[in-house]
Amino acid sequence: MPYTDPQLVHTLQVILEFLGTFAFAISGIRHAAQKHFDWFGGYVCGFAVAIGGGTIRDTMLGVRPFWMTDIMYVLCTALALLLVILSRKWIRRLRNAWFVFDTLGLALFTIAGIQKTIALGHPFWVAVIMGCITGVAGGVIRDVLLNNVPVIFHKEIYAMASVAGGLLYWVLLALGLPLPLTVVVTFLTICIIRFIAVGYHISLPTLHGENEKKREKRH
Amino acid sequence: MPYTDPQLVHTLQVILEFLGTFAFAISGIRHAAQKHFDWFGGYVCGFAVAIGGGTIRDTMLGVRPFWMTDIMYVLCTALALLLVILSRKWIRRLRNAWFVFDTLGLALFTIAGIQKTIALGHPFWVAVIMGCITGVAGGVIRDVLLNNVPVIFHKEIYAMASVAGGLLYWVLLALGLPLPLTVVVTFLTICIIRFIAVGYHISLPTLHGENEKKREKRH
Amino acid sequence: MPYTDPQLVHTLQVILEFLGTFAFAISGIRHAAQKHFDWFGGYVCGFAVAIGGGTIRDTMLGVRPFWMTDIMYVLCTALALLLVILSRKWIRRLRNAWFVFDTLGLALFTIAGIQKTIALGHPFWVAVIMGCITGVAGGVIRDVLLNNVPVIFHKEIYAMASVAGGLLYWVLLALGLPLPLTVVVTFLTICIIRFIAVGYHISLPTLHGENEKKREKRH
Repeated sequence: MPYTDPQLVHTLQVILEFLGTFAFAISGIRHAAQKHFDWFGGYVCGFAVAIGGGTIRDTMLGVRPFWMTDIMYVLCTALALLLVILSRKWIRRLRNAWFVFDTLGLALFTIAGIQKTIALGHPFWVAVIMGCITGVAGGVIRDVLLNNVPVIFHKEIYAMASVAGGLLYWVLLALGLPLPLTVVVTFLTICIIRFIAVGYHISLPTLHGENEKKREKRH
Repeated sequence: MPYTDPQLVHTLQVILEFLGTFAFAISGIRHAAQKHFDWFGGYVCGFAVAIGGGTIRDTMLGVRPFWMTDIMYVLCTALALLLVILSRKWIRRLRNAWFVFDTLGLALFTIAGIQKTIALGHPFWVAVIMGCITGVAGGVIRDVLLNNVPVIFHKEIYAMASVAGGLLYWVLLALGLPLPLTVVVTFLTICIIRFIAVGYHISLPTLHGENEKKREKRH
Repeated sequence: MPYTDPQLVHTLQVILEFLGTFAFAISGIRHAAQKHFDWFGGYVCGFAVAIGGGTIRDTMLGVRPFWMTDIMYVLCTALALLLVILSRKWIRRLRNAWFVFDTLGLALFTIAGIQKTIALGHPFWVAVIMGCITGVAGGVIRDVLLNNVPVIFHKEIYAMASVAGGLLYWVLLALGLPLPLTVVVTFLTICIIRFIAVGYHISLPTLHGENEKKREKRH
């Protein structure tokens, strides 16, 4: 099976990780630009999205944050900032590409988070949570820094795609599927859930305050 | 003395921890509901209140976050979310119960934080701070995620009940009181301070900006 | 050379650290006062500015947070709170002193962060980031707690003075300068950049949203 060739898998993973990191950084910088942050603020927001989730995960797992051993993440964010400064038009025109790369990043980082947590000997339910944190916590930090309500708490399904992928990964391995197949199926499932959620504007149900009249219909 | 019977103490502690965790999770989800978060956002806010303080404490103490070894906290938050989704009326009607359980949680988590810090060999003043962080930092994370100003910084006395309890715990042990009695007295003191503060709307004095006229009277 | 006398260097460092910590705490409490936080909220904001950056650094480096081994930081923040409560007039009159002390703190904490990171065996680019985090992250936490957009992301150059100092430190050591001279030159450079930036209102360029018309002139 071609997807088990180690060289190909490694190359693919490096490309995916670069694209995902780049798209995450772009997301942070674009949001910062809408609030008129300066270049430094844009860089910090981009870096926070790119490395925030994995850093929280590694801190809770008690290991060295992953970005401290590879300058790639620092440079990738700098490249993203340069691109946003040089060409807003280009950034806007490529917004569908950013969306696709961002989804690839979500799927990849979720799986990376799960695998790292399992490798350190934690139970699977911890791994599902850590996978979700790896994929989505950076965006929450971005929104906190921008003084916004975190978008993943009230928009289209995003974090639940990560959680669903994590649960599927668990089930597939428990059913005895080989690891490479489990990874590929999980990866595609997360991407497909996200694409469908955005394409059809599918959100989770919303909570309501206790003193509001019933008005579920309007939401 | 009955309160030193190990079996009873353990059972009581498990019940109190469940009630406290449940009340903390309910608090996060209710606040999320007022901002129309979706189910995932409500879960995250509830979980953040339930485990946020202890997680910050454990990260600073350099030990594994407590919730990663017991799935109870994850399930307890899910139960709280289910309850909020199924019956807003019931949640509102029981608000006095949530207040009492929340206060029990504050007292219990404060003492748990102090004892864990002392057990790891830190001085007592660090333990008082860690006890306070264990009891109140989850609520601060909730307010940050909700894009609100943290309520404990300008409402009725909450964190100071935890700090006062921590200082009392220190004094009582220094005076040679047995540990069980110290725990019980501290627990009750924190609860009583909180009940009095809310019953009589007692707050700490407020700070004022430098360019404001004197108007302490109106506050 | 007088600046290499160990006793003098140590005394100078203790004085600078106290002044810097005090100015950082004052900054947090003054901002909290403008939002009418109570005394506890003011203390937490002051403490967050004083120890927040170093605590994030130490957590990522996997070592015990520095303030947990020395009660000075807790007492220094209490002193700052007392001063703000007792005399708003005095606080306002001394605002130039706070600005100078804050700048000394920024320079000192940046260098302390770099040296601690290098001592733990990390590469220099990690040290520059950790130096910047040590110097500026406390102020970001303050702004998040106050529900403000972090001021260092859109005001006069602050964090970039820290980054520039960190890069200079790296270059000077690589060029073979002795450590004491490197420290002094870096310290003065950070202070001078900050003084010039505030004196002449020099900011980094601002990012712009993608749907805005060009209006760089007005910024």
